[in-house]
Order: sequence, then structure tokens, then C-alpha cells
Amino acid sequence: CIVISPVLLAKNNDVDISGYVMIDHNQFDDTFLENDDDPDKTGIRRARLSFKTNIDENWKTKLQLGFADDSAEIKDAYLRYKGRQWADLTIGQQKEPFGLEKLTSSRNNMMMERSITSEALAPGRSIGANLSGDLSSITWQLGYFQPDETQSSSAVTGRLTWVPWQQNNNLVHLGFAFSERDLNGSEYRINEPLEVNFSDSLIEGTKLFAEDVSLKGVEFLWQQHGFTTTAEWQENKVTDINSEQYQYQGGYLQLSYQFSGENREYKKGEIDDIITPGWEITDRYSQFDLLEENNKVQTYTVGVNYTVNKNLKFMANYVKTKQVDNDSTINGITENGDAVLLRAQYTF
Amino acid sequence: CIVISPVLLAKNNDVDISGYVMIDHNQFDDTFLENDDDPDKTGIRRARLSFKTNIDENWKTKLQLGFADDSAEIKDAYLRYKGRQWADLTIGQQKEPFGLEKLTSSRNNMMMERSITSEALAPGRSIGANLSGDLSSITWQLGYFQPDETQSSSAVTGRLTWVPWQQNNNLVHLGFAFSERDLNGSEYRINEPLEVNFSDSLIEGTKLFAEDVSLKGVEFLWQQHGFTTTAEWQENKVTDINSEQYQYQGGYLQLSYQFSGENREYKKGEIDDIITPGWEITDRYSQFDLLEENNKVQTYTVGVNYTVNKNLKFMANYVKTKQVDNDSTINGITENGDAVLLRAQYTF
Amino acid sequence: CIVISPVLLAKNNDVDISGYVMIDHNQFDDTFLENDDDPDKTGIRRARLSFKTNIDENWKTKLQLGFADDSAEIKDAYLRYKGRQWADLTIGQQKEPFGLEKLTSSRNNMMMERSITSEALAPGRSIGANLSGDLSSITWQLGYFQPDETQSSSAVTGRLTWVPWQQNNNLVHLGFAFSERDLNGSEYRINEPLEVNFSDSLIEGTKLFAEDVSLKGVEFLWQQHGFTTTAEWQENKVTDINSEQYQYQGGYLQLSYQFSGENREYKKGEIDDIITPGWEITDRYSQFDLLEENNKVQTYTVGVNYTVNKNLKFMANYVKTKQVDNDSTINGITENGDAVLLRAQYTF
Repeated sequence: CIVISPVLLAKNNDVDISGYVMIDHNQFDDTFLENDDDPDKTGIRRARLSFKTNIDENWKTKLQLGFADDSAEIKDAYLRYKGRQWADLTIGQQKEPFGLEKLTSSRNNMMMERSITSEALAPGRSIGANLSGDLSSITWQLGYFQPDETQSSSAVTGRLTWVPWQQNNNLVHLGFAFSERDLNGSEYRINEPLEVNFSDSLIEGTKLFAEDVSLKGVEFLWQQHGFTTTAEWQENKVTDINSEQYQYQGGYLQLSYQFSGENREYKKGEIDDIITPGWEITDRYSQFDLLEENNKVQTYTVGVNYTVNKNLKFMANYVKTKQVDNDSTINGITENGDAVLLRAQYTF
Repeated sequence: CIVISPVLLAKNNDVDISGYVMIDHNQFDDTFLENDDDPDKTGIRRARLSFKTNIDENWKTKLQLGFADDSAEIKDAYLRYKGRQWADLTIGQQKEPFGLEKLTSSRNNMMMERSITSEALAPGRSIGANLSGDLSSITWQLGYFQPDETQSSSAVTGRLTWVPWQQNNNLVHLGFAFSERDLNGSEYRINEPLEVNFSDSLIEGTKLFAEDVSLKGVEFLWQQHGFTTTAEWQENKVTDINSEQYQYQGGYLQLSYQFSGENREYKKGEIDDIITPGWEITDRYSQFDLLEENNKVQTYTVGVNYTVNKNLKFMANYVKTKQVDNDSTINGITENGDAVLLRAQYTF
Repeated sequence: CIVISPVLLAKNNDVDISGYVMIDHNQFDDTFLENDDDPDKTGIRRARLSFKTNIDENWKTKLQLGFADDSAEIKDAYLRYKGRQWADLTIGQQKEPFGLEKLTSSRNNMMMERSITSEALAPGRSIGANLSGDLSSITWQLGYFQPDETQSSSAVTGRLTWVPWQQNNNLVHLGFAFSERDLNGSEYRINEPLEVNFSDSLIEGTKLFAEDVSLKGVEFLWQQHGFTTTAEWQENKVTDINSEQYQYQGGYLQLSYQFSGENREYKKGEIDDIITPGWEITDRYSQFDLLEENNKVQTYTVGVNYTVNKNLKFMANYVKTKQVDNDSTINGITENGDAVLLRAQYTF
């Protein structure tokens, strides 16, 4: 008389289905917009479905789909082989191993939006093959990727992290990552909003046809008794098809405190879920420089998060931005802006 | 030795996955088409997947995706809080509380297509926050929504229903709903087919840039011993950016009989599933008026439904339409048309 | 204390969720491209999700969705009635019963890509109603379909298979199929790549507005002790709206050997999964003729597959192609090309 789901009897392995949805409201000044649009928007920021299986003890797979209002997109689609002690091999579409904040799932980050630098410089998802291993307090990753689907391009991306001190989730983490990218003349352009997703992409670099991109990043994380300090710095150098060079760089410093006194989970060089419910206050200074364009952006954000339980979180961020454009032709323009962001996020 | 699905062991809550598919055939006169196309079409009318969870006893979530031949769309994406006795709060993308037929799931309606009035005037899904409660025989809903994603727009929509008499699913229901909509100059245009989904959208209002829309609707439902009488009337008044006013109004009267003698389930002001399998015959008169455009549409539909079980239903509708265009420049044109609609619908 | 998934308690039937993902790398000569693009591409070839239910002992349903990088598509969406002994009825979007290789799921084919002929001539998925039955060693299928969604078109497609000899999965299979297609002036054009999916579609027939297409195919399969011989030949005759006729024809001969000595499963006229893990070597000669265009294509492929288990397979193909264009205006051009295809495929 035990009823067992037919999924178990089917010849297919058990599929772990999960997902999350973020519903956001953004309110911001006109200075966040290119045209005279309306400074107010509510929308679904992300809706994701994941299908994970353990084929056997050595092989795992993941398929993650992302849905927006009228489209669907493949996010992760990879196969992971864990059969060797010294390294795991991941084949398929996955995040390139670069940048602590970029590698943290968007549902676990402390701020509602990643810093401009992480969005503008860190590579994100590509198709490729990645090796990853760990040795006591050190993790390493090295992968070969195809960054641009329409072009014969390639990238070698690697990351090294070290935890010099750890007691449970109290720890210090140091990280270094690089990416050498052969873009073969693909279009390349910095084009990001000012950490306010539903606003316009105001940070605009020169439109380049890039030959090579050389990217480096350093990471620092210290979490203890609910206090967390995170900092990253990233720099890249883009060489275009006329051998001209462009440099972009930036970083952030972020502080947060969880009133429970407990920190987020930390696993093999990456930040994972909040463990205990309750309140969290957050604070971030973020900066991004477009050196050749003589353009610089700074944002300062304070936030408060309330985690009801592992499936439900509410977030609020207040963002102040400053954009300094020293382009010689316009002789120095500074624009300031304020924005309020609200989020309801559920995980299933 | 009890095998339990790993979904249960995972840190995620159990996800209730369900869905439905409608496969339709429409056959119609040339008068349903704008050009000289072909009056005959078979297609997938709707394919939906839903992911529901109970985060805990107070919080519930839903994500519903709609798939068409080559696109995906987020339908519902909301979070519901049921922790207060006097009201539930629903945050996210959801149906605005307006119109009995519009609020009934398309898989439970008596006719294959909703009436023109419900499609043209009732708001449907928006992002917002909605409060809903009930008190003995009364239900109420009041919400604040963002009707247009690309514009700073807002709507306050509310609905009140009363059941003066009820014995199980035998009951009389009265409803009233309103929506005050600030569209801030968004494009607004009535553009609907004549209750034949795969035909062209022949009902065309003036293209407006709307400042405000004021919408009202009344509902009547009486179901007893398998007989059902449903009627709705809706009116709106659109004020455009030049302060000109346009009025649209319409409604329907619908009769049906289920040979089992049992009615559909009724829950908190809404119609739900058929409970008993078997045959049902249906009948609807529907009317829609574009007052300023001097244009009027009437349809008369008879139908028969066969419910095999809770997962499977077949439907057939025969539609007669009459379109009277009294626009002064064309001095009165009347067009009649006939259509046959067939559907196979399965739910899982 | 037995925990049971709430899916079981829900009013919905149990849903069998499965899926598969193919991650491909294609490397090829410039001769596979129309422009001077880059002869190298890695991508997700297919990502599929299936939702199957048994409504009751007589009714089954399937919904299969296909995801590409930024879109979703309904593949299968049908309802199957198995309540009569002499035949099953399938209503909805499904594969028309034509062509052994086309009817075999892409995750079970021996070669990474189907032959040009199967892709160019076999109808694939349409909406319609199909009857299928079997009688000892014979299977038959006959269906009525709508091949073109935007046009009033229709097709009658049928298939007959016979297994003159069978011992378990050792067997000889003969098949014949036809399709009579009334396309009502729809655009018709042969446009296929040379069995290298990420390359350009170089095989280009005349652009026709087709009135009728008459299609025939024969199939041969012999599998024994791990050896498999497959051959198909297909011919069609297209009559355009000016009553001009165009003929296209082609086929393939394919050999393979599984080192386990076991063959694929065979069910009611179709090839199914590999049963035993291990290595397989494959070999195919494929040919396609555009008679009126005086254009002919030949490919020769060798491959090796490694099946880790029922959920995981790796494939490699080496393709040599020869394209002979005898169009009178260009007086005979022959182009040769080479390509290497790699695939990692997982099923869940």
C-alpha cells in the first residue's frame, strides 16, 4: 500500500526540479534614462527553472531555463564528471570561473543587482569545458570557452582561491582570476545600467571590433559572526582590430550584517544560501572607469533584506549614483541620481 | 526499503507541477478575415505549465508559463500570503480582479472562447499587489496594478461578490467590479476577433493615446441541478490625451445544462472545475458596442462539451456573427458570418 | 511516517518529466559556408523537456518543448487513445508517419545528424489525427494532417512496416510510406545543410509555390548480434501553381556495429534506445538529387559513439561531402568538404 511516484518507476533518473522568481519594483530619477521616459517600473526580474540529475555517482547534469515576459533562454546546460579525485570536468554552457559576485547565484547576492564592474567585465556564461579542483584550503578552476556564438572566438579563463582562515562559515577568502579572450573581431561594447535594472544602459563605452581582451580580477571576502566584508577589483585591456587599446576597470567594497549572527554558507570558493532567517543590512560602494573614454561612474547603495525562510526573501536598496564624463568635447559633466529598488523573491 | 523521490530530500519544497494543452480546429467564412486568406486553421490554442508550492502554511507561490508555437511567456508569477484572517495578499503578476468569465480559467469556461466584451474590456494579467478576503457570503478584492510595462501607468481594480443563496454548488452569485486606470498616454485600441481565435481581429476601435480609462462591470450567475445561467455587462470610458472621450460596452447571456445534473465547483466568487463527467450543452448571446465608432457586433453561439474525466474534455461550438458598421462615411454595412470550432483539451 | 510527494495527493495525475540536452561542436571547411564566416562552432544542438501522463488506461498525453538559445518551441502536443484493440488514435501535434530515421528520436539515431534526404523530404511534425495499429509482424499508420499553419493545406500520410523475421531485437524490417500533400500554393523550397548542423544551408532548390507534393519512401533495417544495416530511399514530385513539376530524391545506406553484440530496442516499426553501454562504430553513405536543378550531393560519414549508460552518450562523426552543380549556366561545379562533429548528450 505504499504509493510511489511513477517518476521512480520510469526509466529516467529522478529529476530535481527547482526554480525561483524575482518580482521587482524600481523607482528612479530622470537621470537614469536616455529619453524622457517614465522613471518607474515594476516587472519580473528573473524567472528560472532548473532540472538537475545525478546520472550516477560520477556524472551530474543541469539544465536551467530563464523566462522573461515573452521569451525563454537556456542559462545552464552542462554535464559534470566527478569521477576523478584531483578535478571535476564540466562540459557545456556554464559560468566562466571569474568573479566572486558573478559566480554567486543572483538569488544569494547581498545587493539586488551586481556591481557595474561584475556586469560589465566578468564574462558570465559561455559554452566550453572547465576543470575544477580543490586541495585543502585552495580551489582552482581552468576552462576553455567560446565567448561569442556567431564568431570563431575562444577564451581561456582561470580562477584560484585560498582560505587562509576558516571556522565553519567564519572565514577569510582570497581569490584571483584571469581570462585571455581571442574575440576575432567581434563587436565589443561596454553598455550597462547604473545598478538599476529597469533603467537605461547609460554607461556606454566606444563600439569596438575587438581582437583580444585580457582580463584580471582579485577578490576578498571576510565573514564572521554575521558581519561580511566583500571587495573585488577587475581590470581589462581590449585590443581592437586596428591595434588600439582600451582599458576598463572597477570594483566594489561591500559590508553587511545579519542580525542572526550567522553567515551565508560557503562552498569551494563560492557563496551560497543564507542559513538563518531574519534581517540583514547591507552597504556598497562601487566604481567603474572607462579610461580611454574619460568616463567614470560611482554608486553608493544601502540596503535591507528580510529572509522569511529558505524560500522567501524581501529586499530593498537605495542607490545614489554619480557619473562624471570628462570627454574633452563636452568638458566635464557630472550627473547625480537616486533610485529605490524593491524585490519579492521566492524559491521552490 | 522505501524509495522516496529525491525531490523530497532536496532542500527545496515540493513543487506541484501541472499543465494543460488545447488543440483547436477553427473553420470559418471569409467574412472573418481581413484579406483573402484561408478560412480554416488547426493549431495549439494554449499549452501551459504551472509550478506551485506551499512555502509554509502562510505563503504560497505560483509560476505559470504559456507556450505557443515558437515562444514562451510568463503568465502568473506571484507570491500569496495567507497569514491574516481578514485578507490574503498576492504580490506579482496575476489576473486583476475583474469579470467572472475572465477570472475563470480558460480550461473551465463553458464556451471555447470568452465573449468579446471580456476579451476587449476586462484587464487580464498585470503586475501588482492585490488584497482579497471573504466574509460569509461576500468576497472582496482590491488591488493596485501596473497595466503597461513600458509606461508609468497604474490601475486600482476592485471586485465585490455576494451569494444571496447557496446549497452546495447550487447558488446565485452577484458581482460588481471596477477599474480606474491611469494610462499616462499609452496607446489604447480595441482590436479583437469575433470569438473565433484563429481568425483575424476584425473589431477595431480608434487608435487612441489614452490618459484615463474608467471601467465597470456587473456579473450574474445562477447554477442549480446542472442548469447554469451566466450574464455579464461591462462598460468603459476612455479619455485620450486630447480629452476626447470614447465609450465601449458589451456583455453576454449564457445558458448551459450538464446532463449529470451537477454544477461546476464554485469557490470564493469564482467558477472552477466540472465535477462529474458527461455531456453539457451551451448557448450564448454576446454583444459589443463601439459607441463613438458607431460599430456594433453580435454573436450567437451554441455548443456541446463532453468531459471524459477530470483530465480530458472535448468541445464544439457553432458561432453566428453579425457586424454592423454605421460609420457615417460608409453609411451602414452589415456582415454576417458562421464558424465551427472544435477542441481537444487535456490537463495533467 | 511514509512521506509521499504532494504530486500524488494533488488532483492532477502523475506527470513523467524527462528531457535531454545535446552539446555539439562542429568544425568544418569554408566550403560549408555561404559567406566568409568562421568554420567552427560550439552550441546547444537540442534541449528538450517532455511531460507525459497516463490519464487513465486508455488515454495518454505528451507535451514536449524544445529550447534553443533564446526561444522555446512546442514539439509534441498530443492526446492518444488506446481504447480500441485494432488501432490507436493520436490527435494533435506529432510526427507524421514517414521515414524510419525521421521517426527515430534524435537522441537514438546512430549518426549525429539525420541524412539530407530525411531532413529535406520527410514531413516531420504537423498537427493532425493519426490512426496506428499492428497485427502480428505488421504495423500500419494513416493520418490526416495540416502541414502549413498559415495556409489551408492538408496531407494524408501513411506507413506500413513488416518484420519478416525476428528473434528478440535481432530482426529484419521492411517499410513503405507515402504522403499526398495539398499545399494550396504555399512556398516550398529545399534548403538544407550538408549534414553539419551549425554550417549554412547550401542545398538550395528552386523557390516554388507548390500546389501538390507526392512523396514516397521505402525502408530497410536488418539488425543482428550488434550489426545493423539501415537503408532508406525517398522520392517526391512537387507540382507548382503553374503546373510545372520538380522532382527530388535521395537516400542513404548505413552500417553500424555495437561491440556489446546487442542491438537497439525495436518497438512497433520504430528504433528505440541502446540497451547496453559501450562502443559503437558507424558508417553512412548518403545522397540527394535535385533533378530539375541538376544538382547532386553526396556525403560519406564515419562515426564512433560511446554510451556510458542510458543517460549519457558521446558521439563523434567525420563527414566528407561532394556537391556537384550541373546547372547549365555554370557548367559543372564540384565542391568537396570535410567536417568533424562532436557531441556530449545527456538524458534525464
